[in-house]
Amino acid sequence: MNRPRAPLMPLDDALAQLLAQAQPLAEVEQVSTFDADSRVLAQDLVSALQVPAHDNSAMDGYALRCADLARPAEGASLPVSQRVAAGSPALPLQPGTAARIFTGAPIPLGADAVVMQEDCEVQPDQSIRVLRPPQPGQWLRRAGEDVAKDAVVLSKGERLTPASTALAASIGMDQLPVARRPRVALFSTGDELVMPGEVAPQNMRPGAIYNSNRFFLRALLQRLGCVVTDYGIVPDQRAATEHALRDASQAHDLILTSGGVSVGEEDHVKPAVQALGQLNLWQIAIKPGKPFAYGRVGGAHFIGLPGNPVSSYITFLLLVRPFLLSLQGATQLVPQAMALPAHFAWPRADQRREFLRVRRNAAGGLDLFANQSSGVLTSAAWGDGVVDNPPGQTIAHGDMVRFISLAELQA
Amino acid sequence: MNRPRAPLMPLDDALAQLLAQAQPLAEVEQVSTFDADSRVLAQDLVSALQVPAHDNSAMDGYALRCADLARPAEGASLPVSQRVAAGSPALPLQPGTAARIFTGAPIPLGADAVVMQEDCEVQPDQSIRVLRPPQPGQWLRRAGEDVAKDAVVLSKGERLTPASTALAASIGMDQLPVARRPRVALFSTGDELVMPGEVAPQNMRPGAIYNSNRFFLRALLQRLGCVVTDYGIVPDQRAATEHALRDASQAHDLILTSGGVSVGEEDHVKPAVQALGQLNLWQIAIKPGKPFAYGRVGGAHFIGLPGNPVSSYITFLLLVRPFLLSLQGATQLVPQAMALPAHFAWPRADQRREFLRVRRNAAGGLDLFANQSSGVLTSAAWGDGVVDNPPGQTIAHGDMVRFISLAELQA
Repeated sequence: MNRPRAPLMPLDDALAQLLAQAQPLAEVEQVSTFDADSRVLAQDLVSALQVPAHDNSAMDGYALRCADLARPAEGASLPVSQRVAAGSPALPLQPGTAARIFTGAPIPLGADAVVMQEDCEVQPDQSIRVLRPPQPGQWLRRAGEDVAKDAVVLSKGERLTPASTALAASIGMDQLPVARRPRVALFSTGDELVMPGEVAPQNMRPGAIYNSNRFFLRALLQRLGCVVTDYGIVPDQRAATEHALRDASQAHDLILTSGGVSVGEEDHVKPAVQALGQLNLWQIAIKPGKPFAYGRVGGAHFIGLPGNPVSSYITFLLLVRPFLLSLQGATQLVPQAMALPAHFAWPRADQRREFLRVRRNAAGGLDLFANQSSGVLTSAAWGDGVVDNPPGQTIAHGDMVRFISLAELQA
Repeated sequence: MNRPRAPLMPLDDALAQLLAQAQPLAEVEQVSTFDADSRVLAQDLVSALQVPAHDNSAMDGYALRCADLARPAEGASLPVSQRVAAGSPALPLQPGTAARIFTGAPIPLGADAVVMQEDCEVQPDQSIRVLRPPQPGQWLRRAGEDVAKDAVVLSKGERLTPASTALAASIGMDQLPVARRPRVALFSTGDELVMPGEVAPQNMRPGAIYNSNRFFLRALLQRLGCVVTDYGIVPDQRAATEHALRDASQAHDLILTSGGVSVGEEDHVKPAVQALGQLNLWQIAIKPGKPFAYGRVGGAHFIGLPGNPVSSYITFLLLVRPFLLSLQGATQLVPQAMALPAHFAWPRADQRREFLRVRRNAAGGLDLFANQSSGVLTSAAWGDGVVDNPPGQTIAHGDMVRFISLAELQA
């Protein structure tokens, strides 16, 4: 603490250094396609078929040959020569006739368009009169339109969504190869921490606070597909701390703590990690945030987050989330910011890059949460996004700013 | 099918009619705060304490009285009279001294600022010299700054997030009252459907397609907190269909099908629902989408989605998702659109409101998926959002359009 203030590390440098350590997990799991939502695909998916397999109808109606409508006088009708349901084969279309057809049913050979049933009139003799003549190709879904045979439909490293698991199902995949779940050991530090439910609010001793970081950390880790072992609050002795860390390192990919990584000397975790492995303490040029630790304990990664709730929350989203996605081999690690208008002013620039908690309003702009203190978790619960504000930047009402959706940062 | 084309129902009218049927579920569950992520809060949460409970330090450093620095000659030092760790009580500050203090530790009575340790120099006699004199209030976190006593910290109807469960924990809540999970019975219809894994791609009979809708429907229902019973593909006989529907209606809040709700006559579900309860068939003025059914079977709601994959997917997100959130008493049902620039042209306006699948590009604009056919599920897997384009509207390159994030629509 007699040192001059060290230069802070830019966030992008910290992220690059951290990701350089994130060797993707080698193991691949086969999971049911029903259970693959949010997992990261471990291999390219190549289609063994084309989708649709055959030209088929996009509507309930009548399949016909457009030329047959041009020939007779207007208002002439076409007899219905067959009926084709989805899943049943079609016969070639007899010239001068129409085929009753339903959505998804194969197009009879010789037909070149489908007319919606709403655009047809059924005559007393059950033939049809076409009220709106079609263009060739109308309401046809072409074979291979969705997926060509041998095409890569989903690439290794994609994080699966409900739509992409369904796309995999549409080419016949009932199992999918995904990266295995990262195993994370979660520690909390701080003598002041009390678990909710253990002591009633009116009985809290002076200086005690409820542990809240552990709640968002567990929820966020689960959303990222991790298996979490919660080690609770780190014991207040050096030997016990080392024992717990060594134990955790043997069956986990990552040991994650919040608190205990600032320059202050009241921390038990830091010297224990240093004794067992190695530890780098970074001061990152972000607000909220700043203190951050990365190291190793045996075969496990070690990451220490700041103890302030909002600092811990934001630092997790900006650094730990991409790290955990990268362990799973994901290719897209950071959600894309969007330019939206600030409906607030931020007249005091900070030397650090700031992540301001904001909420979109009905007018399409961003409102600022009044208290941007790093202790105030309310801002993170109230907000639906953050503004990524560059160092030294003030914001005037109406300025376009970089908005990142919390739903995307928490997905 | 001899009728003139019926006027289509605007999406907002359909949503309003649907939500008018969504009486919130009466039952409330108490769940561990650790398990409350994504659930809907059933009661206001009122804080029995203030957070922080006491003024405390936002930094590791020294607590002092600013006036004591003004008095001595510049460079004079303050002896350190006590040491206050987080979770331990502080003595009143002796005038003319500083207290060593750590993040989260209570501020000694009489101190009015904290100086970061990086801004202090420890002297040979262990007193400190302050390099950057503080303003009163610097690095103090005020009692009640995050949460005032008796304040409503989270309101009934909020959908909980990692941050809001942590906020609840910070006021001592280890259990939270949430709406019970909706029970949903899922049916698929269509003789052409084959489950992936049952038949290999090379052995698929002509006209057969793999069931894909069931995959995104199950994943989306689970994301919305529902308990899903998958009834598989509806039997191809009227009596068996009625039996399955009646069975499902007895233990479910919602029976959901995809396929079988268009005007075509090849559907087994429609007449069965009409025989057992009631059914309204809507034609909604959206693309993809349009056919939609809402009805009742016994005590259960019935919703029928279109069978085209993208139509089914979009209709679920725009109508079924708000319906299921509303059953849980949620107050925010629809994510907010954002104005972003189209980096594509859409020269052909449609009479229906369109939901175009797009993806944000590195330049901050939106790229369009080339094939917007409703059969092409690739568009939904590729996209990261949709453009909500009004009826009759063309789009020129550079126009600002309404973007809705798929991550938010799928949360």
